[in-house]
Amino acid sequence: MPSNIEPLELHPDRLFSSDPSVVAIARKLYESIKDLPIISPHGHTDPRWFNENENFGNATELFIKPDHYVFRMLYSQGIPMTDLGVPEHGLQGDMARSKAADPEKVWQIFADNYHLYAGTPSGYWLDAVFSDVFGFTEKLCSENGQHYYQKITAALATPEFKPHALMDRFNIELIATTEGALDQLPHHRAIAGSAMAKRVITTFRPDDVVDASREDFIDNVIKLGEITDQDTTTWQGYLAAIQIRRDYFRIEGRATATDHGHPTALTADLPTAECEALFEKCRTGHSTEQEQELFRGQMLTELAGMSIKDGLVMQIHPGAHRNHNQAVFDQFGRDKGCDIPSQTEYVNALKPLLSKYGNHPDLKIILFTLDETTYSRELAPLAGHYPSLKLGPAWWFHDSPAGMLRFRQQTTETAGFYNTVGFNDDTRAFLSIPARHDVARRVDCRYLAELVANHQISESTAQTLAYQLTYGLVKKAYNLDK
Amino acid sequence: MPSNIEPLELHPDRLFSSDPSVVAIARKLYESIKDLPIISPHGHTDPRWFNENENFGNATELFIKPDHYVFRMLYSQGIPMTDLGVPEHGLQGDMARSKAADPEKVWQIFADNYHLYAGTPSGYWLDAVFSDVFGFTEKLCSENGQHYYQKITAALATPEFKPHALMDRFNIELIATTEGALDQLPHHRAIAGSAMAKRVITTFRPDDVVDASREDFIDNVIKLGEITDQDTTTWQGYLAAIQIRRDYFRIEGRATATDHGHPTALTADLPTAECEALFEKCRTGHSTEQEQELFRGQMLTELAGMSIKDGLVMQIHPGAHRNHNQAVFDQFGRDKGCDIPSQTEYVNALKPLLSKYGNHPDLKIILFTLDETTYSRELAPLAGHYPSLKLGPAWWFHDSPAGMLRFRQQTTETAGFYNTVGFNDDTRAFLSIPARHDVARRVDCRYLAELVANHQISESTAQTLAYQLTYGLVKKAYNLDK
Amino acid sequence: MPSNIEPLELHPDRLFSSDPSVVAIARKLYESIKDLPIISPHGHTDPRWFNENENFGNATELFIKPDHYVFRMLYSQGIPMTDLGVPEHGLQGDMARSKAADPEKVWQIFADNYHLYAGTPSGYWLDAVFSDVFGFTEKLCSENGQHYYQKITAALATPEFKPHALMDRFNIELIATTEGALDQLPHHRAIAGSAMAKRVITTFRPDDVVDASREDFIDNVIKLGEITDQDTTTWQGYLAAIQIRRDYFRIEGRATATDHGHPTALTADLPTAECEALFEKCRTGHSTEQEQELFRGQMLTELAGMSIKDGLVMQIHPGAHRNHNQAVFDQFGRDKGCDIPSQTEYVNALKPLLSKYGNHPDLKIILFTLDETTYSRELAPLAGHYPSLKLGPAWWFHDSPAGMLRFRQQTTETAGFYNTVGFNDDTRAFLSIPARHDVARRVDCRYLAELVANHQISESTAQTLAYQLTYGLVKKAYNLDK
Repeated sequence: MPSNIEPLELHPDRLFSSDPSVVAIARKLYESIKDLPIISPHGHTDPRWFNENENFGNATELFIKPDHYVFRMLYSQGIPMTDLGVPEHGLQGDMARSKAADPEKVWQIFADNYHLYAGTPSGYWLDAVFSDVFGFTEKLCSENGQHYYQKITAALATPEFKPHALMDRFNIELIATTEGALDQLPHHRAIAGSAMAKRVITTFRPDDVVDASREDFIDNVIKLGEITDQDTTTWQGYLAAIQIRRDYFRIEGRATATDHGHPTALTADLPTAECEALFEKCRTGHSTEQEQELFRGQMLTELAGMSIKDGLVMQIHPGAHRNHNQAVFDQFGRDKGCDIPSQTEYVNALKPLLSKYGNHPDLKIILFTLDETTYSRELAPLAGHYPSLKLGPAWWFHDSPAGMLRFRQQTTETAGFYNTVGFNDDTRAFLSIPARHDVARRVDCRYLAELVANHQISESTAQTLAYQLTYGLVKKAYNLDK
Repeated sequence: MPSNIEPLELHPDRLFSSDPSVVAIARKLYESIKDLPIISPHGHTDPRWFNENENFGNATELFIKPDHYVFRMLYSQGIPMTDLGVPEHGLQGDMARSKAADPEKVWQIFADNYHLYAGTPSGYWLDAVFSDVFGFTEKLCSENGQHYYQKITAALATPEFKPHALMDRFNIELIATTEGALDQLPHHRAIAGSAMAKRVITTFRPDDVVDASREDFIDNVIKLGEITDQDTTTWQGYLAAIQIRRDYFRIEGRATATDHGHPTALTADLPTAECEALFEKCRTGHSTEQEQELFRGQMLTELAGMSIKDGLVMQIHPGAHRNHNQAVFDQFGRDKGCDIPSQTEYVNALKPLLSKYGNHPDLKIILFTLDETTYSRELAPLAGHYPSLKLGPAWWFHDSPAGMLRFRQQTTETAGFYNTVGFNDDTRAFLSIPARHDVARRVDCRYLAELVANHQISESTAQTLAYQLTYGLVKKAYNLDK
Repeated sequence: MPSNIEPLELHPDRLFSSDPSVVAIARKLYESIKDLPIISPHGHTDPRWFNENENFGNATELFIKPDHYVFRMLYSQGIPMTDLGVPEHGLQGDMARSKAADPEKVWQIFADNYHLYAGTPSGYWLDAVFSDVFGFTEKLCSENGQHYYQKITAALATPEFKPHALMDRFNIELIATTEGALDQLPHHRAIAGSAMAKRVITTFRPDDVVDASREDFIDNVIKLGEITDQDTTTWQGYLAAIQIRRDYFRIEGRATATDHGHPTALTADLPTAECEALFEKCRTGHSTEQEQELFRGQMLTELAGMSIKDGLVMQIHPGAHRNHNQAVFDQFGRDKGCDIPSQTEYVNALKPLLSKYGNHPDLKIILFTLDETTYSRELAPLAGHYPSLKLGPAWWFHDSPAGMLRFRQQTTETAGFYNTVGFNDDTRAFLSIPARHDVARRVDCRYLAELVANHQISESTAQTLAYQLTYGLVKKAYNLDK
C-alpha cells in the first residue's frame, strides 16, 4: 500500500451531501445546533474516570486496546490479536503484562494499516479526534506513526486531558454509563453532591441476573439475594430483589433508564405458576436453551411492569449473535469484535408485552435494531402506533453516515420525527464522543436539508426539527427534562 | 412545540429532487403527463357517494375519523382515541353519538399537533388538499385551527363539493371500489346506464367467505349459499357459489378484478378429496390455525383457476398482521391503525399456484408487498420471468415519496417498467386522491429524470415511460382498455 | 409501443451520477483506471472458444439463445420460448434444428420488444456492445432489426471477431472459466504452453459430485471413482478422489479457485462416523432432502480443509431457488431464466465451518449473495472480522448500476474496501465482458467520487482505491499475483 503523507483537514461542509443546494441549507441548519450541549444518554464509559479524574495512559491503551471496532478491522486483514496487545483470557496481572505487546509497536502496526479505515466511521472518528482534540495536521501513516504516538501520549499526561477538563471542553451536559445489576455504584455515589453528579448518571442493565444462559447466572442470582436481603430462591423474592436494585440505581446512581441486550426481542406473559416453575429451572441450572429464551422474554414483560411503577425508561437492544468466533472467544474472552448481527423479528416477539402494557401512559420503551430491514417493515409502524414505543437511533454497525441516513429515510415517513429519541453514542471511547455526536448532527441536518430542497418541509420546520433531533427529543425521551 | 403561522405554498418543483439537473428534466416529463386523467383501479371509497351524490359532513368527519393514518400518529403520541372521536366498539346510534367528541374540539387537537406530520405522506397529502382543494394559504396550526374547521365545513356544504362535481374536478376517468363477496352492490346497480356507470366499478374481495379464521366465516358461507342458491355445505357447491358471485360482480358491478388480503402469500394445490375434507373442517368450525392457513392457500389457487375462465385480474395483498393492538381492538374494533407489516415470503409460497397456472396466457396476477426486502430479492425476479405475474405499486406504508422511489430503484433493473402496473391510491380518503396520484407522478418523473441525467435512458424513452407509468400500463393491467 | 428510431450514443459521463460535482471527480478517477486490463476471475465462457479460435455464428445464436437474461424478459411479457428458438428438452440434432425458429425471425421479435430493456442492465450491456463492438449509431428497433442482424452476422465471420482477436481487443489479461468436477479440461490442456495458457484458466466446481439432490449424482460419484482410480463407495475414497480432481484442475487447468453453488450457506462439522453414514445414504440414493442438505453442508467444510492444504480460493454462491418454473423445466430443461433468489442466512449457517477453520491464515473464502438484506446485517460484519472471509461483488440480479451502488453503500462502512475482491462478470456472454467491467468501474468511481465530494475521503485516497477495486484486489484475492 502506498503511504504518502496526506494533509489531515476536516472540511467544514463534510457529510452535508455533494449537492450544493443541499449543502447550503444543511450548513445553516448545522450552524444553529452545532454548539448545543451533548446529551449522551446511553454509553459505556468508565464511571471511575469521572470520579477519580486521573489522566489517561498512552495512545495505544486509549485508542486501540479497548476499541473492538479498531482491532476487528486489523484482525480481518490477518494481523494476530496478540500482536495488537489484546490480552489473552485468563492471563492477569504480571503474566498478562509480560505477554503484552510493546504499545509503541502496536501503534506502528495501526499506523501502517491506517488505510484500511478509509470510508468507515472508525476512520472518520479517529481523524476527527486526531485533528480536533490533538491538533494533528497530517493524516496518520507509517512515516509519522511514532510522532503521533509520542505527541498523543504526552498530551494525555497534561491537566487539560483529565476527564473533568474534557467533559467541559466537549460541552457534555450529561453522560450515562451502564452498570450490571450487582454493581454498588461506588463512583456514582462518590460524586453525589458534587457538580459532576448532575452530569454523570448510571443505567440499570440487569442482563447478568436475567439471562440464564450465562455461565455466571446462578451465582449472580445468589449474590442478588445477598445484597438485597431477599430470598432469591423464590420467584417473588427474585422480583422483589430486582425492584430493590432498580430503586438503588435510581437513587444512588441517578438512573433514569434501564437497558436490555437480549439475543432476540421475544417477550412472554405467562401465568404466575409457570413463571415460578421456569425460574426454578433456571435458578437451579436445569433449563434448556428454549426455556432460557422464554425466561428472558418473561422478564422483559416483568421489567416493563416495574418501569410503569418506578418510571425508568426501558431500552431494548436485541439481535446480536455474541462471541460468534469460538476460537477467539476461547483465547481472548468476550467483546473482541466477534459479535455479528442476525435477523430480528419484532411484530410477533413484542406482542405479549404490548398486549399487557403497550397502551399504558406511564411506559416508555426505546427499541433498537441491528437488522435494518425492520426499520420500514416493523419498527416504524410499531412506533407510529403504540404510545409506549419510541425508536432508538441507528445502532452499532449502523452508527455511521450512510447508516444514519438510511435510518431517517426508512423510518420518518411512517413514524415521523417525534417518535424518535435523538442520538446515542453507545461508546467506551470517551475521546470520540464529540466526533460521534457531530456526525449525527451533520447527517440529520443533511437529511432535513434534502427535505427542504425537495420542498417537502419548510426551512423553518427544519430548524425546529434540527433542535429537536439534537437536544429536545433526547431530554424528553430519557426523562432528563424533569 | 412552537406554532408560528407558516405560509402554505406547494412548490411547483416539489419532490423532483434537490439536484437542479434532475429537476429540469423531471419538470418537462411531469408537464407532459400531469393532466392525464386519473385511473384509480384499487381503493376503498364508499359507492354510496357516487350513487346518491350527497354533500359530505364536517371537516373532522371527513379528514380525521375515517383516516387511520391520521389518528395513528396522534395516538402514538399519547392522545386517547376517545378524545379523537373514534367510536367505541359496540356503541351504536344515539349512544355512540352521545359519547362522540365534539368535532370542533377534535379538529383543534389535530391542529395543535399538526407538526407531528412533518416529513410524512399524510402531512403532504393534507397540505395538498388544504391548498389545492380548499384554497388555504396558511399552514394548519393551533392559531388557525377553528378558521380551518369553519371554512372546510362551509365549503363541504356547497354544490361544488358534491361527489360528482369532485369526480369531474379531479379528472377521475375511473374509480374502482372494493366490496365483500356477499354484497348486493346496490349503488353500482343503481347507476347502471348512467354516465357514472362507466366511471365507477367494483372489485370482488372474497376474504369474508375464504378466511376461516374470521369470527363470521361460518355465517358468511351459509349466506353465500342462500344468495346464490347453492349448497355451500359441499366443496363443489361452495366453489360454484363463489363463481356465481364473481359473475354477479362482473356483470352488475362491472368488476374487472378481484382482491385478496391474506396474512401470507401461501398457495396450495391439494387433491380434491383433501380440499373437501379441509373445507368441511373450516365450514363446521373445527379447523386449526394451520388448516385455516392451508385453506386460504388452496383458495388462492382455486380463484386463479376461476380468473383464467372469467378474465378477472387477481390482486394479492399479503403481509399485514391485522389488529395487532389487542386492547384497541377490544375497545374500538377493526381498522384502527393497528395493522403492522410482517416478513413475507413469496418464492416458495407461490410455487404451487405458479406450477399449476403460472404460464397460462389468460392469467394476470398483481402482487403487492409490505416487506420491501422482497422487491429485489423475490418480486422483481418472479415478475421478470412469469408471464402471469405483474408488480403492484409501493403499497400502504410505502405509498410515500421515499417508498415509491425505493420501489423503482429496487425493481426496475430486474423486472423492467413493463412488468409494473401504474399507481393505486388504495384509499377511503376521497379528497386526497388527486394529491396521491400527483405524488406518484412526480416521483416517477423524478426517477426517470435521474436515469436520463445519469445517461441510462434517453429523454424520449423517459417521455414514453412517463405516459406508460401514469396511464398506459394501468389500463392494460386491469383490462380497462377492452 | 412507439418505435421511432433513436440515436445510439454512449455518453462519456454515463453512470457517474446526475450531480455535476460528483461527475467531475468520477471522470478523473475513471480516466486513471479505465484502460487497466480486465481480470475476469469468475465466469462461464466456453473454453473451446479460446482453444479452437473459431468464428461465432449468427446474431441470434450469440445474443439471445444463450442469454437467459435476455429471453426471460421477453418470456415475462408473454412471448413463448419456442418462438425465441429455445430448444425443447430432449430434442437433439436434426429434430431440434427442424423445430428451431428461424434466427432472423427471432431477432425481429427481439428488436420489436427492445423497449422492454429500458433501465435494465441487459439493455445497457446490449447498447454498449452494439455501439462499441459493432459500431451501430441507431438504437435497435423494429425498423432496423434486419439491418442489425445482417451487419452483426457479417462482422462475426471476419478475423477481427475470432476469440483470440477479441481477447486482445478487449484487453483481457486473464479469464477463468468454470468446469464440473468430472471435466477432463481438454481445451485448457490443449493450450498449455501457448501464450493463451497464461490468460485462460479453469475453476473447480464440484456441485455435480457434492449435491446429492441432483438426478445424476449417483452416476457422477461412480464416474469420479473411475477417472481417479479411487474407491468412491467409501467416504475416504470419495474425499481422496475429490482431492485428486482438485490437483488435476490446479495443474492441468491452472485453477486458483473453486466454486460452490449451493441452495443455502449451511455448513456442518460432523464426526467421521456420521459423515460415512451420511455419504452412504447419499451414494446409494437413500437420502432425504434434509440429509442431502446436511451433506452439502459437511462438504463445504471438507472442501475448506482441502483449500487450506492446496491453496485454492473458495467461492460460495448460495441462495438461488433453481428451476422454479416446473413447466418450463419439464419442457426446456435447466438454466432458462427460472432461477429465483430466496432469503439466505449466513451467521448461523457458516458457524460450523468458521469455528473449525475461520481463523486459519491459509484459508480464503469469497462470499456472494442474492439477498441484499445480508450486506449490512451479516456479510459486512462477518468479513470485517474473520481473516478468512472476503466479500464477492454484487452478483447476478444485482450486477447492475443501482445494485452495485447498494453493495458499496451497505458494506463499506463495516467491512471497508480491503475486504472486498474487485469485480466478477460471471457471464457466458463473451462480447458483453468489456461493457460489464466498464459498468463496475464507472459505478465504483461514482461511489468514490461521492465520498470525496462529501469530504469523507481525499481525492488521492480515492485514486488509490479506484486502482485497488479495479485491478489490485482481484489479483490478490484470487492468488493471481503469485
